[in-house]
Parts: sequence; structure tokens; C-alpha cells
Amino acid sequence: MAEIFINQLKSGQEVSATFALRVKKLMPLRNGTGYYLAVVLGDRTGQLEGRIWESVFETYHGCKVGDVVKVQGQATEYNGKLQIQISAMSVYQVNEIDPKRFIPSSALLLETAREKLFSILESLQEVHLKSLVSLVLSDEDFMNAFITAPAAKRNHHATIGGLLEHSLGIVCAAEGMVQVYPNLDRDLLITGALLHDLGKVEEYRFRTGIDFTDEGRLLGHIVLGVRLLDHYIGQLPGFPEDLRLKLTHMIVSHHGQYEWQSPKRPKFIEAAVLHHLDMIDAAVDMFKSAAESRDDPEDHWSGWIKGLDRYVFCK
Amino acid sequence: MAEIFINQLKSGQEVSATFALRVKKLMPLRNGTGYYLAVVLGDRTGQLEGRIWESVFETYHGCKVGDVVKVQGQATEYNGKLQIQISAMSVYQVNEIDPKRFIPSSALLLETAREKLFSILESLQEVHLKSLVSLVLSDEDFMNAFITAPAAKRNHHATIGGLLEHSLGIVCAAEGMVQVYPNLDRDLLITGALLHDLGKVEEYRFRTGIDFTDEGRLLGHIVLGVRLLDHYIGQLPGFPEDLRLKLTHMIVSHHGQYEWQSPKRPKFIEAAVLHHLDMIDAAVDMFKSAAESRDDPEDHWSGWIKGLDRYVFCK
Amino acid sequence: MAEIFINQLKSGQEVSATFALRVKKLMPLRNGTGYYLAVVLGDRTGQLEGRIWESVFETYHGCKVGDVVKVQGQATEYNGKLQIQISAMSVYQVNEIDPKRFIPSSALLLETAREKLFSILESLQEVHLKSLVSLVLSDEDFMNAFITAPAAKRNHHATIGGLLEHSLGIVCAAEGMVQVYPNLDRDLLITGALLHDLGKVEEYRFRTGIDFTDEGRLLGHIVLGVRLLDHYIGQLPGFPEDLRLKLTHMIVSHHGQYEWQSPKRPKFIEAAVLHHLDMIDAAVDMFKSAAESRDDPEDHWSGWIKGLDRYVFCK
Amino acid sequence: MAEIFINQLKSGQEVSATFALRVKKLMPLRNGTGYYLAVVLGDRTGQLEGRIWESVFETYHGCKVGDVVKVQGQATEYNGKLQIQISAMSVYQVNEIDPKRFIPSSALLLETAREKLFSILESLQEVHLKSLVSLVLSDEDFMNAFITAPAAKRNHHATIGGLLEHSLGIVCAAEGMVQVYPNLDRDLLITGALLHDLGKVEEYRFRTGIDFTDEGRLLGHIVLGVRLLDHYIGQLPGFPEDLRLKLTHMIVSHHGQYEWQSPKRPKFIEAAVLHHLDMIDAAVDMFKSAAESRDDPEDHWSGWIKGLDRYVFCK
Amino acid sequence: MAEIFINQLKSGQEVSATFALRVKKLMPLRNGTGYYLAVVLGDRTGQLEGRIWESVFETYHGCKVGDVVKVQGQATEYNGKLQIQISAMSVYQVNEIDPKRFIPSSALLLETAREKLFSILESLQEVHLKSLVSLVLSDEDFMNAFITAPAAKRNHHATIGGLLEHSLGIVCAAEGMVQVYPNLDRDLLITGALLHDLGKVEEYRFRTGIDFTDEGRLLGHIVLGVRLLDHYIGQLPGFPEDLRLKLTHMIVSHHGQYEWQSPKRPKFIEAAVLHHLDMIDAAVDMFKSAAESRDDPEDHWSGWIKGLDRYVFCK
Amino acid sequence: MAEIFINQLKSGQEVSATFALRVKKLMPLRNGTGYYLAVVLGDRTGQLEGRIWESVFETYHGCKVGDVVKVQGQATEYNGKLQIQISAMSVYQVNEIDPKRFIPSSALLLETAREKLFSILESLQEVHLKSLVSLVLSDEDFMNAFITAPAAKRNHHATIGGLLEHSLGIVCAAEGMVQVYPNLDRDLLITGALLHDLGKVEEYRFRTGIDFTDEGRLLGHIVLGVRLLDHYIGQLPGFPEDLRLKLTHMIVSHHGQYEWQSPKRPKFIEAAVLHHLDMIDAAVDMFKSAAESRDDPEDHWSGWIKGLDRYVFCK
Repeated sequence: MAEIFINQLKSGQEVSATFALRVKKLMPLRNGTGYYLAVVLGDRTGQLEGRIWESVFETYHGCKVGDVVKVQGQATEYNGKLQIQISAMSVYQVNEIDPKRFIPSSALLLETAREKLFSILESLQEVHLKSLVSLVLSDEDFMNAFITAPAAKRNHHATIGGLLEHSLGIVCAAEGMVQVYPNLDRDLLITGALLHDLGKVEEYRFRTGIDFTDEGRLLGHIVLGVRLLDHYIGQLPGFPEDLRLKLTHMIVSHHGQYEWQSPKRPKFIEAAVLHHLDMIDAAVDMFKSAAESRDDPEDHWSGWIKGLDRYVFCK
Repeated sequence: MAEIFINQLKSGQEVSATFALRVKKLMPLRNGTGYYLAVVLGDRTGQLEGRIWESVFETYHGCKVGDVVKVQGQATEYNGKLQIQISAMSVYQVNEIDPKRFIPSSALLLETAREKLFSILESLQEVHLKSLVSLVLSDEDFMNAFITAPAAKRNHHATIGGLLEHSLGIVCAAEGMVQVYPNLDRDLLITGALLHDLGKVEEYRFRTGIDFTDEGRLLGHIVLGVRLLDHYIGQLPGFPEDLRLKLTHMIVSHHGQYEWQSPKRPKFIEAAVLHHLDMIDAAVDMFKSAAESRDDPEDHWSGWIKGLDRYVFCK
Repeated sequence: MAEIFINQLKSGQEVSATFALRVKKLMPLRNGTGYYLAVVLGDRTGQLEGRIWESVFETYHGCKVGDVVKVQGQATEYNGKLQIQISAMSVYQVNEIDPKRFIPSSALLLETAREKLFSILESLQEVHLKSLVSLVLSDEDFMNAFITAPAAKRNHHATIGGLLEHSLGIVCAAEGMVQVYPNLDRDLLITGALLHDLGKVEEYRFRTGIDFTDEGRLLGHIVLGVRLLDHYIGQLPGFPEDLRLKLTHMIVSHHGQYEWQSPKRPKFIEAAVLHHLDMIDAAVDMFKSAAESRDDPEDHWSGWIKGLDRYVFCK
Repeated sequence: MAEIFINQLKSGQEVSATFALRVKKLMPLRNGTGYYLAVVLGDRTGQLEGRIWESVFETYHGCKVGDVVKVQGQATEYNGKLQIQISAMSVYQVNEIDPKRFIPSSALLLETAREKLFSILESLQEVHLKSLVSLVLSDEDFMNAFITAPAAKRNHHATIGGLLEHSLGIVCAAEGMVQVYPNLDRDLLITGALLHDLGKVEEYRFRTGIDFTDEGRLLGHIVLGVRLLDHYIGQLPGFPEDLRLKLTHMIVSHHGQYEWQSPKRPKFIEAAVLHHLDMIDAAVDMFKSAAESRDDPEDHWSGWIKGLDRYVFCK
Repeated sequence: MAEIFINQLKSGQEVSATFALRVKKLMPLRNGTGYYLAVVLGDRTGQLEGRIWESVFETYHGCKVGDVVKVQGQATEYNGKLQIQISAMSVYQVNEIDPKRFIPSSALLLETAREKLFSILESLQEVHLKSLVSLVLSDEDFMNAFITAPAAKRNHHATIGGLLEHSLGIVCAAEGMVQVYPNLDRDLLITGALLHDLGKVEEYRFRTGIDFTDEGRLLGHIVLGVRLLDHYIGQLPGFPEDLRLKLTHMIVSHHGQYEWQSPKRPKFIEAAVLHHLDMIDAAVDMFKSAAESRDDPEDHWSGWIKGLDRYVFCK
Repeated sequence: MAEIFINQLKSGQEVSATFALRVKKLMPLRNGTGYYLAVVLGDRTGQLEGRIWESVFETYHGCKVGDVVKVQGQATEYNGKLQIQISAMSVYQVNEIDPKRFIPSSALLLETAREKLFSILESLQEVHLKSLVSLVLSDEDFMNAFITAPAAKRNHHATIGGLLEHSLGIVCAAEGMVQVYPNLDRDLLITGALLHDLGKVEEYRFRTGIDFTDEGRLLGHIVLGVRLLDHYIGQLPGFPEDLRLKLTHMIVSHHGQYEWQSPKRPKFIEAAVLHHLDMIDAAVDMFKSAAESRDDPEDHWSGWIKGLDRYVFCK
């Protein structure tokens, strides 16, 4: 049975659902005789304050931030905002967690994405690139990870499925580019666009939120991506060394500049175009989110957007 | 009658044609009894050494580098390379100069470009942007300049017609982008793409080569472009202030970063996309030129490309 | 009748005056039975906390931060600090607002400033520059704006009249420079100093505080200033093109470096000197403010001054 | 039979030896009747000019810069400098080339190096790191490459065997560090020091000079090194994941900063120490070379040293 | 009699001891009838909250942050954390203050340090450097300062004796380096290592915490160190000018780069090595502190470490 | 008897004078039978080519670049340019060299400068600063050096007396500033302006050209200047410590930014103003020299000016 989401709750409603515990804090009672427990609960639709007045210390010590908690209680309105009066809260069984309940998902429909992936595969003429993409698409474990991974911890496409949305966005933009610039090697650019961020499946982990893995922080998705590409190409005897070198370089250089953590800068045109399309696809997502983040939709300007290092004009 | 070009000359051929004087130098005769005059002549197809043995000093003082000179002589082969033995050389009448003889022209056909310009105009739905583009296209003086201007002194699109080729390239790329990212304001992006570099018609001057104007060096094409945009919008009563502000910002911010001489960074998505498409269009031209500039087409690498600050892989 | 200012208030005094509403916040009553409204009120002399115990929600929703509010109440001392117990607070009629009540004004006397402006005009020998300055000074609308505009949102000369004070400060410093360096073109430097920041009249708006306009954030005062200069010079037939180019360049380059948002760097000496005098005039104001901002006048050091990116020695 | 080296040649001596062709140039004869061929020949001890007066064009077109050429001729003194009058010069058989004749070799004796390598292996206590180093040392093909590879194209340790000298230098310095800082993980630091640059065996190629491989320029030795480490650890079942992660990070971060092409900065102390020891070992070599490069050993200063971006004090 | 330290306190224990007053704040009583005084007390072992319920205002005004206060009270446990209920608190007599009670001390034993200092002195062969070190070591006033000074306000070695620990750490590392790189001038490097930061004795002051002196902020320890070195060498007639110049340069350049406040970059190898050893010694201390600062020793990562500008991997 | 200068020579004139030897080069005779010696001679007015046909090798080995040479010969015109046919050239006696013959001198008259120095001294009200300046002015050895030293090796004021001209220029500009900004401490600013670069007397050496001393390159004029200031203030018992600290800081911070080799940035207003006046005075000199360096006085632009990193507009 589908659980209720935070943005569906109404004042007075009984609640029995799981949430991610985002914050917990012991607070002194106003009469000075003890404490209550103030929590912030979250799911993919937002956050909500909760109050626990009984078994305060047991509950406090029985869970930690990041846990999924099973909550019993009642939604009430307090000073114009919804709150849950919680009668019971405890850690939920781990093996049944679905991150999609807690982290926003990409708007991209999985079915649409799959169709796009296979149409990309079909469109490839270069036989080795086609084999490579085919091999990757048929690796079920990898694809399950690739389909759900986020493209970032925050900033852009920080959603379940965000990596796939981002990768396909760049593939589509690349398809536009090859129409305009016929000297681009279409299949190389498309394959590079699809695979440039594949290391991100190992850079992030997510459960009730998105975080870096140790590998992600110590090696980064560029090095992890080269490793994955090596893994796949290693299974394709006869894959041309030049093509492998070019694809690997496209991963290595796609951040475009040393200070953005690319150990090499793009040295042929498909690598250079990939870098800029990566920037555009991220920018489109960040400017859109910036506009959506305004408190008042009448404002001409967003607040300060850290990932863009600027205010965004939204008129 | 069409004059001969340098890349058409054959050994033994009589030459009577105009060239740009690129270099002139008095050289001592090997027998120590006087001087000869060594010159480098150029046209859009290349450069050629020339030798003058008579009236050396008069000829030397009668012309200066950058002049168009009328040359009489004979092509000869000397150590495997063509050279002109010049019997007479003098400055040519200025009022008949055609820069296309001396500076390479964009590969874009003017007819194709005109069609594209009018199809852009037709495609615009937003009435004020359509009026603006219509006004610009119908300004014959400006269009003559816009059609011939280069996009740079060197680096990318440093050709007659290069500015138009560059501007239309970005418009085409922008048309691809709006397919992929439907939240982009198509007409704003297309108009911005077409007009973003319009100040370049006043930034460069060209006759036998491309150089900066004083305005170009002191103000730059961003400020000159804002001035031109103001000039046109000033003729369109009722042009919405918001639209004018956005278009102006797109010119002001299209270099993307302060250190690249943009006084503002892009603050809405169409401005940000325009910046990256500008980078891509320039990169496509520069990587292509880099490959073409190799001495040996078998080399995997170009020489150092200053505009890209790197060697380019050409395999 | 002159209203009372915050720094004149005494404990026990009845207050009936307008203030700028800087902060508003609903706070739970200590007995847990409801809320009170805590506000911060401001005028040009400082800020003051206020408390509202009746009609809390109506008052809260009846005004927003940045409004001018009419306040009735009594000043009281609470823990050594003054506070207003507010009996009534409502938004004040907009069309009668005087920003000088809410924003500090420059110490420069308007009469002194006007005299200086006309003595500058008189001192100019170059006929076209004299005409230009004369035209600007006689534009009443512009002068009303120029006389009241701030030179910044914070950092330096963020006062009503700050722009004029800053501009005249640089003119005076420039007059000193031409004594020392006789090869400077006096009239060019003086005119450039007077007009270099004229775009700031359109970069900022102020009412109860100083903020950027949309134009200010999207175009900046350099581009806005060029536009205004064009507007004036356009009315002066026969204004020499070279002089216009030089003056325009002085506006364009006066921040001195690309990363400080100048699209060009100074390319002749008057432009270079103007840039440094601009830096000095701003520094004098910022170091002075830094010293004044110390809590304890015995301290050798100010706190961290963001605009200077350092601590300031005040001994 | 051992061939003669350039620094052993004496005037009047007959020469029959192989050299690297560094420069070739057709020069007009002084009497204007034809050309001679001027070449620069090189071996590991220096360079020498040569002159060819017969079969000039055949010889010119029969060889290219970078070739090994077999030279017959006689050393003569010309204006105080030695020169070879060449009677015959032709390209030498490729399959017998020994780069050590043409590129300087490290001063490190191979026997000493081998002993050091095995004493490092013996000194390791951590069983997996010991297995890894043992595996690498027993890979004959790799070791042959590792023993001969240079550490750079120029700047520091640009010699045959330079990579090994550099790697062992850092190991020795690391051994000193663990004496001083006992909280360092000795075996991790030593192993990291030995293997940090192993990708350089694929980054450079050398025959008569040192140059980048395509892999070197497109991927760089950091990415190539991670690949090689993966190759070796892949053969060691049970190698702890944490240890692999740490060693890999040490390769990835050893340049210390993004702008020096490290995609990650050191995130634990052994990685940080490795980075600084790498800097020291390179500096020792570069300062020494700077002093040796002075024309006059009495000069207090070297010329400008590009790799150090400074003049070096040599007193 | 030894006073008790914060980390020795137990709930219920009577306290009569001196502490550094780190924070003081008047807080409203929950019943709204007045105020209590909340303080944070510190010594070298940590910090502790305290509460004062009587003579609140007198106590508040009778002391200021940074003072040493004599505290009477009782340790109690409140919500799982220790707190002191303070019955009396007043400023302590200044002339008896021992900073070691309030600021952590280096782990280096003074006796060990002294032995090391004299073994350094003995080890020096170069007679003038030996005289110089001997002179410094025999300057009792300076040595008392050198032995107790911190090496920084925070970041690394911010302890009493931290400067000495840091200086000797670098000397020890330098002794390792001269084993590996025999072309280093041992005595110069060792003397430079010992004295490179001597200006820090005048850069910091410490009593209950570490702060900059005015000299420290206005001149910095590099300029102060040159001045001190001049002072000592001025007492050594016949000290060679070259040696003085080299030692002075080692102080002047030891931060390695202009942006790290070195007015010169290292221009000979001993200066370059000193710079890197300085970086290593600081890094060892900062990475160690980062690991110790984790809340949960099971965490793989420290929090953000400002001095290192990164998270630290602690697994 | 006054020697002739290069810019006074006429064709046909006999020459017997001393010059600085700037370049020497052995050149093959055109008939292939030997060598001639080509030299470039210089004095403060310019440079001239010379030719030596006899005793070529003896002359070549008998002098080195930088020497003053006694030249006998005859000025001749060759291809429109003057040249000296040299019959004898030998090294001149060192102890009689006057650098003013070889290096341009400042246009500032020494008498004017002395008057200005004494009027500065008289103008000082603050008794200790007056004593300091008086002490410096009365140090004959220092003043001889201060009066002749250049302010740079090239870029700005690279003349004999350039340091004094530069220092007095800033003092004059500072006098203008204190008129405009009355909160400036006049005497501090004036004294700081006069003495800020005093270390340059030890940074440069000059004889036939300007070069760095070893101290200059290893320590720089900031550190050398602090040392000199210490030397003078050390002779003034009772000189206030605060004043010494401020003056020293003004020397230490006058380059304004770390990357311009200031170990501290200006922390009070007089130091900040001094920095900007230093920039202005250097700029005035560099822009003027840029205009003078044009080949054609009709050109609107100078060539690339390295010290300004730009082209200069000269119209």
C-alpha cells in the first residue's frame, strides 16, 4: 500500500508512515521540568517538523540522523505551519528501503529513457562503438545503477535518475550539434556523451539522501569512469586502440580545465564539444532550479545560487 | 579581367598582378657591390617571395608594408620553391581595392547566408524581436558591413564573411538546443545569437589584412554592440523594456566570465546557453584550422595553437 | 514637523513617528499561550528593537520588510538597551516618503557641491568638454538623480549623495595630479573624473535602503554610463570623435582590470590615473568607516572589513 | 666495437659513426652556384655541426630530423670550433638503435638501483604491499621499461633511467621522513613513492630523443598509472580494497593541486608527504642542472630556468 | 597546589580553580523575572559551560572575555553534559598567570628539545654558523620566548612550545634530506631550518589564548625574523656576507610563493628544500589534528579542515 | 674635454671616444677568407654598429660585453645608417668610468631635487619624522647613492637619478592628496613617500647598464629598505615605537598585493594611498615612454609595452 507523502498531509490527519530522519534535537520544556524531542522528517516531497513528548530519551538514542524511521502520530497546524505530534517513532527495517521515497526522482520517464537508449544504440554506425554501447546496455547490474544514480550531491540533477537524464540530455544536444557541424565524428561524440559520466555510478551512494562514496572522494568519477570503460573495452577483442584512446580522453578531459579537476584539457573537437554540452546541460538544470527556488514567484531574482556563484534573473 | 592568384602561378609564367606587400627588406648583394630588394607578396591564397634587382632604393622607399602593389615580373623556381623575379613594382590605386583578393573569405556562400537570414526572420514569432531583426536586415549599410566583417583578427573565423558564418553557426546550434531544452525562450535565444557580436563590424577594419580599429581596441565589440543595439531599438517605439534589457544583457555577458572581458556574467539561461554555443562555434573552427595547419598530414599532432593554448590531436 | 530619530530617543518617551521596517518575526510567548511580534525599526541614525503584544497577526501580515511604517508607542529600557513597546504599527503612505530619513546622507553639503560643480565647469578650457559638462549640469532630472544617488550598496559612499561626494573627491584629487604631472590632459581627466560613474544613477534604487536595479545587475554602471554619455554627446553636434572615444574609454576602463568588470584596461595615461584615483577615493572612505565601526575606540584593530578584505589598523 | 662520442673527437680525426640528426638545412654556396647541406649531429655527449658538399640534394631528401644517420667524414676545426666535413651520410638500420648513445643516462648505476629495489621489497612488512611490489619487480617487461624510462621530456630527470632515479630518490627521502614522523604508515608511503609515477613508462617514448606518446598527451601518467596499478592488483586476489584505494589515491593526487593536473588533492598524510617529496626530488635535480648550465662557472646566477620559472643563485 | 583541569572534573565535585573566560552572556530567566549569567570557561584541556544565578549583573560587568577568573562552584550533570553551578566568579590576579594552564602545550618534552638543540649546535662544522647558533642559544631572553612561542594562532602547532616543536621537526627532516641528497649544504640547511621562523616569537602573544601582536599583523614573521637575524649576526664580526645573504634569503623565501606572503621565491636548493619541509611538518600536524577532531572515531572522514581546505580521510 | 655622443656623430667624422660595448660578434668575410668583428657600441644617447677589419681575434678576445671601450675610427654612412669603421678598440681604465655617459639620466635637475628635499624636511611638523628625514638627508654616503640610483632595471624610471625623481614625484602627489583628504596624516604620508623605496639603493648596481645586485635578487628592496630604516631609526633614541611600526609597514606593504611581492597589504589609509600613488607615478612614466618609443609619431598606438602588459593609445 502506498504511503502518504509530506506534501499530501492535512491538518488533523492520522499519520503512519516512514520518513527520513533529517534532524533530531533535545529541547528543554518551557516549564523547565524536562525535555521534548524536536525532529525534522523528510521525504522526496519536502520536510516537516515533528514533536515527541513521551519516551523522549529512549527515542532520541534509538535512532540517528539519516535513518529511516517509522512514525505514528497526527498532523496538526501550529502557527500556520503543519507539524506532526508523534506518539511513536522507531528505526525502520533496512532491507526494505526504497530511496525513491526520500530523494526526488528525475522527471524523465524510465520507459522514455530506455527507448532513447536503444534508439541511440541503433543509430550507431561505427561497429566497435556499437558493440561497446551494446555491451554496456546489456550489463544489467551496471544499468540498474546507471538508471538510478544521481549526477551530483547537489547543484544539478541531484535526483534519482539524474545521471541518466543528464547523459541523455547531452546525447540529444550532441545530435543537434552534428547537424550543424558535419565535420564532427557523430558516433564518437554520441558514445562519449552517453558514457562520459559513467564513473558517477561509483562516486555517489544514496539511501535517504545523496552522499559521496570513499572512492568518489578519493578518486573521483573521472578516474572511476576510465576504470569502468577499461572493464568494458577489455571484453571487446579487436576494439581499435585509437578509438579507445579517444573515448578515454573524452572522459579524462570532459571538465575542460585543470582547476575543474580534469587532468587533461580537450585535445580534439569532439572532446571540446562534449565539455561545452556538459556545461550547457548542467546550466539548464541549475537556472531552472534557481527560478523554482524563489520564495515569491513575483521576485525578479533568485537568492544566491552557490553552484552558479550568482543571483539568477527570473523575470 | 580576373587576376592570377599565388597558388595558380607556375614556373616560367609572366606575372602582371596586384598583391599585398607583407614584408620588404634591403639585402646586400653577394658580391658586396650593393643591394637587392627582397619582398614577400601575399594574396588570399598564400605568400610568395620576390626579388628586385633594379631601381632598388626607389622601389624600397616608394611603398610600405600593407600597401597593395602592382607587380610585373616572371615566376621562377629557386631551390624547389617558386619566386618572382620582379621587373617593376609600384603602389596600386587605392580606390579600386577589393579585400577579398588579399584576405581569405568564409566558405559560406552569400546566397545561402541570405536565405538563412530570411528564414530566421520568418521563423520568429515574438513580434518585437521580429521587428528588430527585420529592421537590422533592411539596413543596407550595416548588412554590407555585417556580411563582410571578420569575427577576429586571428584565432577563429578570421576571414571576410567570418562574422556572418560565426553568427549563423550559433543560430543553427541554438535551433538544435531549443529542440532539446523546451524551456528556452526560442526567439530570444535566436535573436541574441544572431546579434551577439554585431559590435564586431566596428571592432575590425580590413583592406589587405585584418586589424583592430581604435574603437575596437578602446571600447571592444561588447560596448560597440550595445550601442548598435540601442541604435536599432531606438527606432522601434513600443519595444518592451524587459526584452531590450535581456537582449542587451546577452551581448554584455556573452564572453561568460569577467577575465574574458564580459562586464557581467550570464544571469538567465538563454544568456548562458549563448555563451557556450559561442565557445563551441569558435572551437569547431579552431580545431579544424589546427588540423589543416599541419605541415605533414600524417602527423598525429598540430603545432602549438595559440588561440587554444594547446597542441591538437589530429589522428 | 520634524520627526524624532532613533538616536534621539530616551527611555520613557512617547513615540509617534515613521521608521523603516528592517525585520519582523513572530515569537512564542514565554507562557506558551500565543505569540508576540518582534520587529527591528530603522532610520538613518540606527536601528531599534520593538515589541507588539496586541493584534499581533494582523500587524504581522499588514506590512513587509522594507516598508515605511507609522509607529505609535513608548520607548523603554530593557536590559540596558532601548526598545519600543509598540501600541500600533501600520504601513505609511508611499507618496510622501523621504529616503533621507532612512538612509544616511553624505556629509558633503549640497551647496558646497553645487559651487564645486560650477567651478569645475568654469575651469574647463576645452570647448567641447565644457559644452558637455554644461549640458549635463543643466539637465535637471539627471542632476536631481546624480545629487542623491549612492556610489554603492555597501562598502564605500553608500549614502544619499555618496555618488556626488565620490565624483567630486576624484575631481579634486585629479586637480592635484595635474599640478604634479603636467603632461596630463587636465580637462579630459577632470571631465572623466566627474562623469566616470554617471551610470550609477541607474544602477541603484533607494527608498528605505539601497538596492540594485535590474539594469544595474544585468548591465552594470559601466555599460549604463556609456549609454548616458552617448545620450549627451548625441546632443552636441560637432563633438570631436576622438574626444568622445577617449571619454568613453575612460568610463569603460575605470575599474582597471578585467576581473573587476572593466571590459577594457586603461590604454592612455588619463584613463590609468582616473582608475587609481577612484581606488584612492574609495579606500579613504572605507578605512575611515572601518575605524568608526569599532565597538571599542581603544582597539588597535577594526573587525574584518569585507570591502577591503582585511582588518584595519586604527591606532 | 664502441663508437666514438662527440666530446671525444679531435681535429683531424677520421670519423665513421652513427649520430642523431638534430637539424638539416640547405644553404646557398657563397659563390651563388648552388647549395651545401648544413647539419647538426648529436649524441648523448653533445652536438656538432657538419657540412656536406657532394650529393647535397639526395642526402637532404634521404633522411629526416630524428633519424639515426651513419656518418663518414673528418673532424676539422673552423673558427675555433670543431666541425665534421662529411663525405657520406645515410640513414642507419633501425633495429639496432641504442637510445643510450643519443640520450644522456642517469648517473644512477643499474646495479645499485637493483639492490635498492630489492632492499625496499625486503623491508616491507605489510604482506599485500610486499606481494604487490614483488609482482611488479618480477614483471620483466615492465621492469625493462621502468629501468630505462625518463621522468620527463625536459625539466628534471630527462635521462634514460631518470624515472628510476627519481622514484628511488623519493623512496630514500620517504625513509628519512618515517624516522621523523612515526605516525606515517611506512610501507604505504614507501610503496606509493616507488610506484607513484609508474604511468610514465607509457607517457614517454625515446629513441634519439624524448617525446610524449599519444597516450601520454591524451591521458597523462596519472591515469596511465592507475591503469597499471589496477593491472597488477587485479592479479593479487585478496588485496584489501582499502589499501588499493589508498595507493590509487596516492597516484591520483601526487601532483598536489588541480592546476598541476591532479584530479584530487592529497586527503591523507602519506599522500600529502609523497607530493612534497616529489617536489623536493625534482627541485634538487633542477637546481643542480641550473648551476651546471651556466656558461661561466664564475657567474653567481644561472640563466632563466623555465621549469623553475626563475633565475638560480649559484654562488 | 595543582589546580584541577576541566577534563578531570566529575559530577558533584566542588570546584575552586582558575579558568579562562571564553564567553559570557546574560540570559533571561524562563519565568521572565530577570536574568542569569551563562559563561563558557576554558583551560588547556577543553571548555565547560557555567551558570551564575546570583549577583548576575555585578559579575557580568566585573570581568571580560579573555580574563582569567577565579571560580567557586559545583560541577553538575545537565542533560548528559557537565556544567558548573557557580557561586562566585571574579577576575584573578594578573601577575601570577601561567598560560600553560589555558593553552595546550606541545607534546615535545623541554628536556628532549634542549638536548636536540645542543646536539644540533655540536653537529655544525661551519664555524660561523656554529657561532651564530651558539649565540642564539645562549640568549636567555630569546630562548625563553622561543621555547614557549606557538607556531600559529590556529591551523598547525598552535600550542605553547609549538614553534620549537615545528622548528626541530624541520631540522630532523632536514637531517634526513642531507643523507639522500649529498649536494645539499648541510650546515646551511640545518641552521636555516632552526631559525627560519624565529620572527614568530614577536608575531604572536599568548596569555589565555593565542593572538597576533601589532607587529605580527603589520610586518609579519618574515620581516621580524630578518630583523632578529640581523641583530644576532651584527654581534658576530667577520660573519661572511655571503652566508648572511643566504640565511636571510632562506627566511625571506621560506613560504615559497608570493601569494603565501614570501617577497622572494627560493633561489637556491637549500631554500627550496626548507620550504617543502616546512610544508610537510605543518601538514603532518594538521592531518593528525584533523583525525583527532572527528566526533565519531569510526567516521572515515573528518569535518571540513579550514587550514587544509579539504576533508581528511581517516580510515 | 667632453667626449662626443652617438647622437652627435656625423658621417665622415673622426671618432676617438669611449663607449659601452653592448654586443660583439665574429662574422665571416664575404670572400670566405676570414672574419671581421661586428660590434654594437652604446652611450646614453643610443646605439651604433661598428666594424673592425684588423687584429680581429685579438680585439675580440681583449674585451667583453659590458666593458667600457676606447674606440678610434671614422663614422661612415652605410645604407642610410651611420656606422663606425674602427681602427682600434681596447678596454678603458675602470677607475675613471662615469655611468652618466652610458645610462640615460633623469630629467630632474639635481639642484631642483635638493631644494625639494629640504623643503620637505622643513615642512614636517612631527618632530621624530623630521629628525629621521634630517638624519637621512645628512648621511652623505647614502644621499650620493639615493641621488644617482635608478628606480628599476627597465619599465619605469630606469635612469640615473630615477629613484629620486620617482620618490619626489610621489611626495608631490601626496601633498596634493592631503589637501583633498584632510584625515590623512600628512607627515607620515610624506615621510613614507620619500623613504618607501630607499632599499632600491642596494637593489640595483649600474656602471654601463643597470642590473640587480645579489642582495636585490635574493632579498628585494622591501626587505633591504626595512633594514635601512632600522639603521636610521636605531640612531634616534626616543623615536616612538608606533611611528616606527607604521613607517616600516608602509615600506613592507607599498606594493599593495602579495603577488606583487608585498608580504603585507596596506592596513591603514596612509599605506593604502602610498601604494596607489606609487602606481600612478610609475604609470605616468611608462605611458610617456610608450608614446616616445613609437617608430612613427603618426601611429595611434605604441608597440606592446611589457611593463604595462598592453598597447598604449597615443593619439
